[in-house]
Amino acid sequence: MYIIKIGGNVLDNPVRLQRFLIDFAQLPGPKILVHGGGKIASTIGLQLGIEPQYVEGRRLTDAETLKLVTMVYAGLINKNVVAQLQALGCNAIGMTGADANAIPATKRPVKTIDYGFVGDVAGPETINAAAIHALVQAGLTPVFAPLTHDGQGGLLNTNADTIASVLATALAPHFAVKLVYCFEKKGVLADADNDDSVIAHIDLDRYSALKTEGVVKDGMIPKLDNAFAALQNGVSAVLIGEAEALPSLATGSGFTGTTISLKHG
Amino acid sequence: MYIIKIGGNVLDNPVRLQRFLIDFAQLPGPKILVHGGGKIASTIGLQLGIEPQYVEGRRLTDAETLKLVTMVYAGLINKNVVAQLQALGCNAIGMTGADANAIPATKRPVKTIDYGFVGDVAGPETINAAAIHALVQAGLTPVFAPLTHDGQGGLLNTNADTIASVLATALAPHFAVKLVYCFEKKGVLADADNDDSVIAHIDLDRYSALKTEGVVKDGMIPKLDNAFAALQNGVSAVLIGEAEALPSLATGSGFTGTTISLKHG
Repeated sequence: MYIIKIGGNVLDNPVRLQRFLIDFAQLPGPKILVHGGGKIASTIGLQLGIEPQYVEGRRLTDAETLKLVTMVYAGLINKNVVAQLQALGCNAIGMTGADANAIPATKRPVKTIDYGFVGDVAGPETINAAAIHALVQAGLTPVFAPLTHDGQGGLLNTNADTIASVLATALAPHFAVKLVYCFEKKGVLADADNDDSVIAHIDLDRYSALKTEGVVKDGMIPKLDNAFAALQNGVSAVLIGEAEALPSLATGSGFTGTTISLKHG
Repeated sequence: MYIIKIGGNVLDNPVRLQRFLIDFAQLPGPKILVHGGGKIASTIGLQLGIEPQYVEGRRLTDAETLKLVTMVYAGLINKNVVAQLQALGCNAIGMTGADANAIPATKRPVKTIDYGFVGDVAGPETINAAAIHALVQAGLTPVFAPLTHDGQGGLLNTNADTIASVLATALAPHFAVKLVYCFEKKGVLADADNDDSVIAHIDLDRYSALKTEGVVKDGMIPKLDNAFAALQNGVSAVLIGEAEALPSLATGSGFTGTTISLKHG
């Protein structure tokens, strides 16, 4: 099974999105798509008078922003992706973590910062893997918007990378899961200014060195931490690359991005 | 199986909605909820500078309005209903007609009026009953937003009464289906100015007479036409009443609304 996460850079570009969805629809076997947000939420938010607020690069989710992301992520983006996949012969079903109780979460506790209606997923053991398994066995391709729920009637805005990672881990007992992060670069770069300096393989030792050298920093650290956590919990492979690298996954050769493994060699 | 349609009058009122969802969650056996729109779409549309346009009481769906209803119906309303049902122990899964290819439709042809992105469902035979059946067998309760898709990547705004009726007919070979329309009145009224003048039973002969007498008119005619079409195609019962009448369905007695049948007595 492939679990593939696409970010806003693909969602914001209709041509790239369409090309990505063609590639995704053609991937053989069971698969799940997890999508992020994209700039359209901010654009529509501004039209509605909702100013995006950030603390340390993370968006705060007040009650109005929660409504906004519920509309844009679970409505506009999710349903258009589903309709496009259906047109490509992929029997998609759009979901949030509330649907089928797939991903229960808890509202992030307020410490120094109140992130608002943001969901933390305790771990893969809280995922309703049986329900997702049943959907996949019925020939459906779940497409997840980055929202979860608190089990008390409330929706929660949740990081899409985290959703992809916990889904991969939760489904690892059922399937040989490959987790793929499609993002704006060709892979993890040795030189941030050189798009062609992709590091082909990163294992735990190399990761440790890359962090010490300061090559891997900022937003890549939680992404790679998530990747290694998934591998340590039974996920077969974690791949990071651009959306355009997707066809190489189907053929099994020529992947141009970064392959993450516990031990390489 | 119960297929229950609720309209905007319930959705627009958080207290009535919560009470309705408690009653719905307690209904035994397989069930499907179909919800309409509500005033919130118009309110958010106005904030976004989208003026609602109507011709002969029907809303026109231009490209901007389609985005709006996708956000509000499939996102905001659908996912909040799902999260609330989950909190009540009902394992809901929110859907449009695009999800699982449940309800394919065609864009309404332009004759004298261009309704825009509005979907017509050819009939119950086009519904993907097998997919819906699989979800219900997996213990899930589908919650449908009033959107369908054209199979070519486009979403279509679709009348919720129609969706409820074609779903009921399509599922009639699999389940003994009772179709329930919850609306703003206690039932079909003999006197529009008297809320207590509910007609307890309407069969085909009585319907014909009520139309001739002008008692049944306007928006009730397509609703009742839909009801009789469903009955003639295998649906066990069609009930029309207020949302508060739902508990009487579970007990099987004391329904205060109108029961539609082909032949009464």
